Amino acid sequence: MVRIGIDVGGTNLVAGVVNDNYEIIARAKVRASDFRTGEEMTLGLVSIAREAVRLAGLEEDQVRSVGIGIPGTVDQRTGVAIKTVNAPFDHTPVREIFQSRWNVPVLLNNDACCAVLGEGLAGCGQESSFFMMFTLGTGVGGSYLKRSSHGIQVRGTEIGHMVIRAGGQLCSCGRRGCWEQYSSATALKRQTREAMEQAPDSLMWTIGGGKVSGRTSFMAKRAGDRAAAELVERYLSDLADGLANAINIFSPELICLGGGVANEREEDLQYPLEKLVAQRTRFRQGIQSTRFVKARLGNDAGIVGAALLDLAEN
Amino acid sequence: MVRIGIDVGGTNLVAGVVNDNYEIIARAKVRASDFRTGEEMTLGLVSIAREAVRLAGLEEDQVRSVGIGIPGTVDQRTGVAIKTVNAPFDHTPVREIFQSRWNVPVLLNNDACCAVLGEGLAGCGQESSFFMMFTLGTGVGGSYLKRSSHGIQVRGTEIGHMVIRAGGQLCSCGRRGCWEQYSSATALKRQTREAMEQAPDSLMWTIGGGKVSGRTSFMAKRAGDRAAAELVERYLSDLADGLANAINIFSPELICLGGGVANEREEDLQYPLEKLVAQRTRFRQGIQSTRFVKARLGNDAGIVGAALLDLAEN
Repeated sequence: MVRIGIDVGGTNLVAGVVNDNYEIIARAKVRASDFRTGEEMTLGLVSIAREAVRLAGLEEDQVRSVGIGIPGTVDQRTGVAIKTVNAPFDHTPVREIFQSRWNVPVLLNNDACCAVLGEGLAGCGQESSFFMMFTLGTGVGGSYLKRSSHGIQVRGTEIGHMVIRAGGQLCSCGRRGCWEQYSSATALKRQTREAMEQAPDSLMWTIGGGKVSGRTSFMAKRAGDRAAAELVERYLSDLADGLANAINIFSPELICLGGGVANEREEDLQYPLEKLVAQRTRFRQGIQSTRFVKARLGNDAGIVGAALLDLAEN
Repeated sequence: MVRIGIDVGGTNLVAGVVNDNYEIIARAKVRASDFRTGEEMTLGLVSIAREAVRLAGLEEDQVRSVGIGIPGTVDQRTGVAIKTVNAPFDHTPVREIFQSRWNVPVLLNNDACCAVLGEGLAGCGQESSFFMMFTLGTGVGGSYLKRSSHGIQVRGTEIGHMVIRAGGQLCSCGRRGCWEQYSSATALKRQTREAMEQAPDSLMWTIGGGKVSGRTSFMAKRAGDRAAAELVERYLSDLADGLANAINIFSPELICLGGGVANEREEDLQYPLEKLVAQRTRFRQGIQSTRFVKARLGNDAGIVGAALLDLAEN
């Protein structure tokens, strides 16, 4: 038997067939922009799920369950996608629509929960009884996984919309100073452009072919650029502020960083972050300190985790 | 059978005998300053627990268990009080010492966890499957209670040390801009004194007999004082910032406010807070909004909750 995991992304919808070793053995995808409503998109999910099964050389009755990671709020119990930001779901009865075409157990959860479950069962969090995952992308996603005698619990948060700098940068949520306005990949790109305007001679103008990305400042810093070094230092400091808050709130054993920014070298990202965060959580003497690791599965975490939703508590 | 709950406060240690209706039927207390070490204090706890049993007219073998709420970090499993701020515990084997004098089941937890458990079982959170409690006192305490098919889970957080204003007011934890530097009763008193210095004609100088407390600014505002009204507005705004963060992180159904400040009239505190927080969590459309209530048990929450620790998961 296999399971299917579907990641509903802003750009692509990807279905993967996942075996009992938690490996993706086949995948099918379609562009998200092909669908205008939640109903249409759900039918698209049925279609890529079936296509993935065909590509795996399997039959539909060999599929144990289908899990779907939704970029927004879901009601797991009813299988309704309540509200999404980068997808057209709006109180869409995804399970009901899916099952009207293919009668298989369908589980829904938030995409950040799927990612943390994937990393927890098949990635960097396999040994941990309580870890958090932060994804530095368009925004800052935060989710956590707890193992107990009762099973595995995953939860998503909107911790990217935790204000760390009251009155600061305006956020899409309507508040000012949200963490993701400082620590997302999007924010880093904006900060890079701003720093470039202030430093006409900076290597950031030319490095990496002149295209500004989340990597630009880190690359220029490594090449010895002073403006880039200052920017990276400020970025890490703001990131450490939010991470220290999260540690004070949740006390996780392990923090797993995902998203493009997390691919920087450990000596440029994890190590300085660990140091900054330790300084900022000093009063927690006697409490086990939090380790930092890199997410291991990349974008596949969401697919694997969606497929394995039946292994987590609802 | 009864249970004993002990609240280890900065000023007093109080033991209460709690019956099966979750009511305190007798209590005994002693001053915290009588004890210099964790060992000495633990023996003091044995003594007030025994005294409370005597005052209830009961025998020791009618006591099912003793629960102790510690103002700091505990290892629930081993019964060790690892570190406390306003008490002399330092890796103190509280359970072992207690049981060397009285062999009864002894449970330890953080005092904020005890308070939320007390409110959850006998106070404002009896109907809620997931609520948070914030105590506005010397600092800002935050804890939560979840009911599930597996039982009741309580957890404490150090959310008072969530930075909401990077680079702001210096905190005892070493960081700048922690929430409790703006929203604790201590912070409100400091802000009141600062506002008074700026406003020599303010009613805050004379109202309430001229003694500055957490109530001064609210009282002067109700009497029509402009400086006090401005201060209260700023205080509520900072408090709402932290509460909105907590809602974005945890999505509780209910928020219960405790501590002296929470005793202000609802039209001066809960209602404006609900409005401010709703504005700041507007992007959460489609998600059930969070209700605000006043803690019901006051200081007794910690005693009742400590007594009932055997009803929560460890």
